[in-house]
Amino acid sequence: MQNTAILLINCPDRKGLVATVSGMLYERGANIIHADQHQDHEAGLFFMRVEWALDGFDVNVFRRQFAPVAAELRMEWRLELSSTVTRMAIFVSQYLHCYADLLYRHKAGELDCEIPLIISNHPGARALAEFHGIPFHQIEIGADGKTGAERRQIELLEGHGIDLIVLARYMQILSSDFVSRFPNRIINVHHSFLPAFVGAKPYHRAFERGVKLIGSTSHYVTEVLDDGPIIEQDVTRISHRDQLEDLIEKGRDLERVVLSRAVRWRLAHRILSYGSKTVVFD
Amino acid sequence: MQNTAILLINCPDRKGLVATVSGMLYERGANIIHADQHQDHEAGLFFMRVEWALDGFDVNVFRRQFAPVAAELRMEWRLELSSTVTRMAIFVSQYLHCYADLLYRHKAGELDCEIPLIISNHPGARALAEFHGIPFHQIEIGADGKTGAERRQIELLEGHGIDLIVLARYMQILSSDFVSRFPNRIINVHHSFLPAFVGAKPYHRAFERGVKLIGSTSHYVTEVLDDGPIIEQDVTRISHRDQLEDLIEKGRDLERVVLSRAVRWRLAHRILSYGSKTVVFD
Amino acid sequence: MQNTAILLINCPDRKGLVATVSGMLYERGANIIHADQHQDHEAGLFFMRVEWALDGFDVNVFRRQFAPVAAELRMEWRLELSSTVTRMAIFVSQYLHCYADLLYRHKAGELDCEIPLIISNHPGARALAEFHGIPFHQIEIGADGKTGAERRQIELLEGHGIDLIVLARYMQILSSDFVSRFPNRIINVHHSFLPAFVGAKPYHRAFERGVKLIGSTSHYVTEVLDDGPIIEQDVTRISHRDQLEDLIEKGRDLERVVLSRAVRWRLAHRILSYGSKTVVFD
Amino acid sequence: MQNTAILLINCPDRKGLVATVSGMLYERGANIIHADQHQDHEAGLFFMRVEWALDGFDVNVFRRQFAPVAAELRMEWRLELSSTVTRMAIFVSQYLHCYADLLYRHKAGELDCEIPLIISNHPGARALAEFHGIPFHQIEIGADGKTGAERRQIELLEGHGIDLIVLARYMQILSSDFVSRFPNRIINVHHSFLPAFVGAKPYHRAFERGVKLIGSTSHYVTEVLDDGPIIEQDVTRISHRDQLEDLIEKGRDLERVVLSRAVRWRLAHRILSYGSKTVVFD
Repeated sequence: MQNTAILLINCPDRKGLVATVSGMLYERGANIIHADQHQDHEAGLFFMRVEWALDGFDVNVFRRQFAPVAAELRMEWRLELSSTVTRMAIFVSQYLHCYADLLYRHKAGELDCEIPLIISNHPGARALAEFHGIPFHQIEIGADGKTGAERRQIELLEGHGIDLIVLARYMQILSSDFVSRFPNRIINVHHSFLPAFVGAKPYHRAFERGVKLIGSTSHYVTEVLDDGPIIEQDVTRISHRDQLEDLIEKGRDLERVVLSRAVRWRLAHRILSYGSKTVVFD
Repeated sequence: MQNTAILLINCPDRKGLVATVSGMLYERGANIIHADQHQDHEAGLFFMRVEWALDGFDVNVFRRQFAPVAAELRMEWRLELSSTVTRMAIFVSQYLHCYADLLYRHKAGELDCEIPLIISNHPGARALAEFHGIPFHQIEIGADGKTGAERRQIELLEGHGIDLIVLARYMQILSSDFVSRFPNRIINVHHSFLPAFVGAKPYHRAFERGVKLIGSTSHYVTEVLDDGPIIEQDVTRISHRDQLEDLIEKGRDLERVVLSRAVRWRLAHRILSYGSKTVVFD
Repeated sequence: MQNTAILLINCPDRKGLVATVSGMLYERGANIIHADQHQDHEAGLFFMRVEWALDGFDVNVFRRQFAPVAAELRMEWRLELSSTVTRMAIFVSQYLHCYADLLYRHKAGELDCEIPLIISNHPGARALAEFHGIPFHQIEIGADGKTGAERRQIELLEGHGIDLIVLARYMQILSSDFVSRFPNRIINVHHSFLPAFVGAKPYHRAFERGVKLIGSTSHYVTEVLDDGPIIEQDVTRISHRDQLEDLIEKGRDLERVVLSRAVRWRLAHRILSYGSKTVVFD
Repeated sequence: MQNTAILLINCPDRKGLVATVSGMLYERGANIIHADQHQDHEAGLFFMRVEWALDGFDVNVFRRQFAPVAAELRMEWRLELSSTVTRMAIFVSQYLHCYADLLYRHKAGELDCEIPLIISNHPGARALAEFHGIPFHQIEIGADGKTGAERRQIELLEGHGIDLIVLARYMQILSSDFVSRFPNRIINVHHSFLPAFVGAKPYHRAFERGVKLIGSTSHYVTEVLDDGPIIEQDVTRISHRDQLEDLIEKGRDLERVVLSRAVRWRLAHRILSYGSKTVVFD
């Protein structure tokens, strides 16, 4: 695979942004592979993602020269290199379908990342971690409460240089303190079509309400429960013939797909979030 | 088209229900065209829909003989005849897409009903009514308030022997008194994937929340706003590229489809509702 | 609505294309509203669509200055102005659902075009044309055969300065000669998920084959039957309970949606076609 | 889980079939849990599936008493017991996604079967088989050609009393002789929306054709390639932005879902096939 750089920009909209960025890249001989931009006219914001090949391109020089331009244009920006592999931790509890799916996809080469760490409050996930040769840490909430458990989790995450945390049906609510340490770095899957059925037991509530479609949502975690920017959603049709357990079973397939898409897009640096929304460049 | 009878049953589940009903029909020589049943194991309920050809079948005798059996088995039931055409009224306000769609489908033979009556609180719907040759009544909320308007509506509905009221984006909230007169006889379309975005301006709220799918829901109207039994739902994928007006435009296609399916199923006597749910036999 | 210009480009891929185009626009003070580009790496092709506001922008000067640049870069390009309204003709036969849908959408303001002309080989479409106040021409294949009918059609199309022909379930196969006069200007809807069930009676064949989804396809018409670049496709789930007439009825909703999307995208100059494919900028 | 019996019937349609079957079950005290029937009016066929609890029900007596009734009504029928666990073999080649998915679902309790046997013409699938503790047989086409390989496969299948063979992206075409030994007992997944792109390399051909949806199909294997009765199909939307490898990656998720649904339905004895079609009771 080719070495590439990816520039992600989020800034107030104004004339000439595309011309400025593409001009700078062209002058330095960049061979652009993908480029996409988006304007939120209502919010007056501009978003851009450009990816180019690095052969013969000095990315450090570009970074230095781009910084003052970006500052002048009030850009939030980051420059990612495809050669820097994301380090991802998975958190899981007793339901293993999303977890097993992520591990399988990783092994099959679908997820371009390293997984140095699996953390669970249950023992059930250990066997698969061992099969895949990934260190498994069982951290239960002990005498020192959730604070103590989170302290040990944070030590592990920081010790392993983790860039991305994926909650693969992890059934503990993370504290605000934990969440605020990892902004836009925690992806969760919720087993409903958010904002319908925020909170616990969404399938039960969907069943009681008599909906004709069930859904699943992957989103960044923020300090407000189930309220972070939505990355992906999908639904499946159900009918009166589906009992509660059918909803749960059909929902598992949705959860897998919706979570793995979000992870894949995050690893390809295709998501920009702002307010309660995301731009997902495809 | 063949003359048929349709028997709809809703009762506590117990052994022998199918045998009893199908046995009675067989003994009387009924030629069954469709039959379907459903059990809600959790609620302990049994639902059945049977349709049979009427050639040489005395439906009045059957009705008389079935009544005591049904009473003993604590059945709620009704017997519909395909020869009795449903009389449907449409209520509409300024958005005409669902209304125009229903009128077109009616003319094209997709909706097996008569439409003796269109009621609107706006003049905009009049031209299409006239093109289709259907009496149009503009009833605005006048000096006597909503009560007066509803009184005039009820007079029209009762005067024309209306069986079914379809709210095709009718933007007035009906009073409890009005709703309670027409149980399971008012179908509404809500422009969201209920129960997400209950109430007003759902597309605005979906846009602000940053969802990746928008939906639409058709449901029976009950006294609690947007809470009646759901008949049909569908969704469309959107992306960050869709502005609010795109959501509204894409949503219109959903609303048309979701409402017209509900109406068609109701006219074919395929919907049974119980609690906040429906069984839709397909 | 704002006056805008839309530049559509299709050319061999090379470095600096975005920089060149966006630079030229920026220098002339263009306020870009939408921009999107795409590279087909396999085919080595680059596609771009840019839309900008015209206040204070001299589009004729730009056109003159852009032409030599485009020639040097071997671009196929065109510059469309939102102020130039597309003139669209509808061809229809006996099935009126797509036709009625397009007329309704036009009236409701969803389709930004003029419809100076409806052509049919059947009388059934006349009433709706008259309701909408659009001239209706019934052209049947007479003694002079298809050639004669097409000659009269072409006279009408040319006489009215038609830019776009929409075949709304028009059941006659157009001759190669006719098709070749209107490249990328004839949109058809085929009632199958092409390339499954190419040709006649696709619902019958889908029913016989026992598929679990039926589809519909809108595409540009080329000289090979049902083989032109696909613009849009969609599907609906069916089950064994659906008889042939159910497929036809469910399919009608697909046809309407799939055709109207293609027309809307064409009117917004969002489609670029190459080989047997399309790029649809969204 | 409750012990149940499942009766599956396929016969010429006539009056009284439901009454006869449900009457016989009622007289013997059966507590029916699910019942569904279907009529193909065009083909004049009747299909039924009934499931009832076995407590206090003598299934052997019923079988004996039902046989002459069924013969008289020219029924094809079978009686399955939930206590008799299906024995399923998986065939796999180098693409492991469907295979890994089935093994995971089996372990998670979603597939009610035993898997005594995995057969592959590649070594790559061995590690997962060993992790799951399932005997793995690598059978390559050797000096004795496909006939020899199939002979060894048949010995294994018969030796292990296999009821169901699942081709989880098995890339060898089975001989007519092999197929005819296992009627309605071999389920395959084809990576297209059949009958589009029958045969090899469907994603390549879908990419070249420029379709806007890709699909996947699970079906029973018959002697004509990719022509057996379709059990399930699903599609995913793609756009011009998707390159060939994106189609392949998105398609993998479809294949997994479409194959696993077919397997689950087969294990629940919910599929009846006739001609080139299936009835799938839900």
